[in-house]
Amino acid sequence: MAFLNDNYFKLKAGYLFPEIGRRVKAFGEANPEAAKRIIRCGIGDVTEPLPAAVTAAMHKAVDDMATREQFHGYGPEQGYEWLRQAIAEHDYRAKGIEVAADEIFVSDGSKCDCGNILDILGSQNKVAITDPVYPVYVDTNVMAGHTGEADESGAYAGLVYLKCTAENGFVAEPPKEHVDVIYLCFPNNPTGAVATRAQLEAWVAYAKEHQSVILYDAAYEAYISDPAVPHSIYEIPGAREVAIEFRSFSKNGGFTGTRCAFIVVPKTLLASTAKGEHKPLHPLWARRHTTKFNGVSYVVQRGAEAIYTPEGKQQVKALLDHYMGNAKILREAAAAVGLRVYGGVNAPYIWVSTPAGTTSWQMFDRMLNEANVVITPGSGFGAMGEGYFRISAFNSRANAEEVARRMKAIQW
Amino acid sequence: MAFLNDNYFKLKAGYLFPEIGRRVKAFGEANPEAAKRIIRCGIGDVTEPLPAAVTAAMHKAVDDMATREQFHGYGPEQGYEWLRQAIAEHDYRAKGIEVAADEIFVSDGSKCDCGNILDILGSQNKVAITDPVYPVYVDTNVMAGHTGEADESGAYAGLVYLKCTAENGFVAEPPKEHVDVIYLCFPNNPTGAVATRAQLEAWVAYAKEHQSVILYDAAYEAYISDPAVPHSIYEIPGAREVAIEFRSFSKNGGFTGTRCAFIVVPKTLLASTAKGEHKPLHPLWARRHTTKFNGVSYVVQRGAEAIYTPEGKQQVKALLDHYMGNAKILREAAAAVGLRVYGGVNAPYIWVSTPAGTTSWQMFDRMLNEANVVITPGSGFGAMGEGYFRISAFNSRANAEEVARRMKAIQW
Repeated sequence: MAFLNDNYFKLKAGYLFPEIGRRVKAFGEANPEAAKRIIRCGIGDVTEPLPAAVTAAMHKAVDDMATREQFHGYGPEQGYEWLRQAIAEHDYRAKGIEVAADEIFVSDGSKCDCGNILDILGSQNKVAITDPVYPVYVDTNVMAGHTGEADESGAYAGLVYLKCTAENGFVAEPPKEHVDVIYLCFPNNPTGAVATRAQLEAWVAYAKEHQSVILYDAAYEAYISDPAVPHSIYEIPGAREVAIEFRSFSKNGGFTGTRCAFIVVPKTLLASTAKGEHKPLHPLWARRHTTKFNGVSYVVQRGAEAIYTPEGKQQVKALLDHYMGNAKILREAAAAVGLRVYGGVNAPYIWVSTPAGTTSWQMFDRMLNEANVVITPGSGFGAMGEGYFRISAFNSRANAEEVARRMKAIQW
Repeated sequence: MAFLNDNYFKLKAGYLFPEIGRRVKAFGEANPEAAKRIIRCGIGDVTEPLPAAVTAAMHKAVDDMATREQFHGYGPEQGYEWLRQAIAEHDYRAKGIEVAADEIFVSDGSKCDCGNILDILGSQNKVAITDPVYPVYVDTNVMAGHTGEADESGAYAGLVYLKCTAENGFVAEPPKEHVDVIYLCFPNNPTGAVATRAQLEAWVAYAKEHQSVILYDAAYEAYISDPAVPHSIYEIPGAREVAIEFRSFSKNGGFTGTRCAFIVVPKTLLASTAKGEHKPLHPLWARRHTTKFNGVSYVVQRGAEAIYTPEGKQQVKALLDHYMGNAKILREAAAAVGLRVYGGVNAPYIWVSTPAGTTSWQMFDRMLNEANVVITPGSGFGAMGEGYFRISAFNSRANAEEVARRMKAIQW
């Protein structure tokens, strides 16, 4: 008989957002009137239209596909050269960062890339994640058989959890022990924290010493407002020898429903075979990407390219300003009612302490019942998220203002 | 130190099509004039514009993305309900086949699905593939560590190879031995062969007896012209208990550069845990798909939906007629010069015996040098493909006619 991958049965009761969806649905069925005024600040999904430069480019690309002369069939799996060049030029070289176009692999999403990267890594690696954490890092390691069972707190045996707390500003220090693979995400989802240059230097130094690989998720880099905070791990000398970087058009260009992202695998990044030979990861990822993936839609890549035009950049900036304006309103509202507030300055997420004695899910239910606002319970991101909740700034201005009003109307 | 997935080093010298690309490039550099008249009948990539119904739907969808009211962020990872319903209705229920919308998972390509499906299967499975075969089935099993090393013929230890020859009409019978997972592809890439109802019944009976899982790749089903030939494995009673089906919009709607496909995982399909419990595959695939994938672009899904409109169906039929008209021209040309010809009747691929004493790659080089036509060497699909070459019918009519002329001009 055919066998299943038993590792899937280790996964805890489902991904966070389906659980939120279930509770919101149940609330709506029980309270059909209140359901009409629900405002969603849960999942980090953009709400504003695509930049005009992007839709114009996509229209033109659709027209291309309607003529024999301009039709595009299979493209290069790694992405069209014009998009890889635009990324290398605008996101890296223009900022003095050394990344070549052929080190960039265009994909249909960072979520996919974060999961797929495990394909080329050995199963004997010791993996470290932060707590709280974007659940996909954990779940994909569970599925790949890199962990044991979860304990009562939801922590999986075999993973190294790096605690992020108010005390360390939600930026974990490198561990005392040895780990082979480390997931870092800055600006952080869910806490909105950013790492300083010195903190990233400490991580790169650790990775060099331990010959570890850092998986650096920079999907929210466009939201950094502090000029001293690095946007890319490659701003740190030596990072090209130890880090893979994940980037996305979802949160800058509003591509969550359009789907385009990329990953940087420097040719200078090595890891070990079982026998101890050091070999580059780049050709393995190239083989993986060309064998198990067939490139991003031509129309979508043309849309992504438009983000790098002068108009595109201006329109993206307006989008970012819009969402960060929301973040300010939401931050200030949470602070005004006496809650301790983190994030929301260099990231579109506000990370808020629940009132004493209130758990994250209790807070979720209260916000849903009393304010008809959907937030994300911090405990959904890991044990250390207990006692916090996340408010997403992805919304219309009117909704952000209304959420602020409703928060102030609750008896805290 | 971080470890690599060593299985990648077992992979033979690269995927077939990069090698073809390399030889064509080298030829072009040595013969810049001849390079200008090269006609590509190698990779199975469509050449004709997207159907007008599709581009109209995509334009409308881009317009949706340009307004706040109609903007679409993250969609359901499994695909929009309207697309899953359209697929279930038109591809299955209208043809009397039982497939529910929630058994359909929309993806960005069959190549991806074929590779990703291994994520939910155990590594202890005995895997059977046909020879010749679409290389992705093999390579993804090698990468996943399901094989040993390759021998001189390119065959990997641990895989069961089912020989497809002129004698069995390129349709393998079920093996005498036990296998857990079987890849079948009909209409076949590369041979163009189709399986009769009786042949598929034998496979379903085998799979029921052995409790195996059939991975049924039906990416080319739209090209079937013989009304007696099944389009779906689910036309065979009992197949819902043993088979997963892969379908694509690439070859009917011309979506190779637009990217949309789907996979059917019946809820009635079970496999075993290591301890011998029988459990459905559907929830595992749902978990995999929602955790490691974020849905297909809204604009692309709207395009795919348009294929099921009356105009869309008519335009797809015209596309299919066009390519199958090419297939007829190419078949007849190859036969006219005395070669033995297979396929090309229910599939857009013509499978041709090389002249006695000529290897597949020699034939590739001859066609490139003497006719400036790129074909695919049969041996690239496996040891049993030696002595054959594949001609793709995906081309303009003018090119198909020119290839026919040039083939006739060669001294055979």
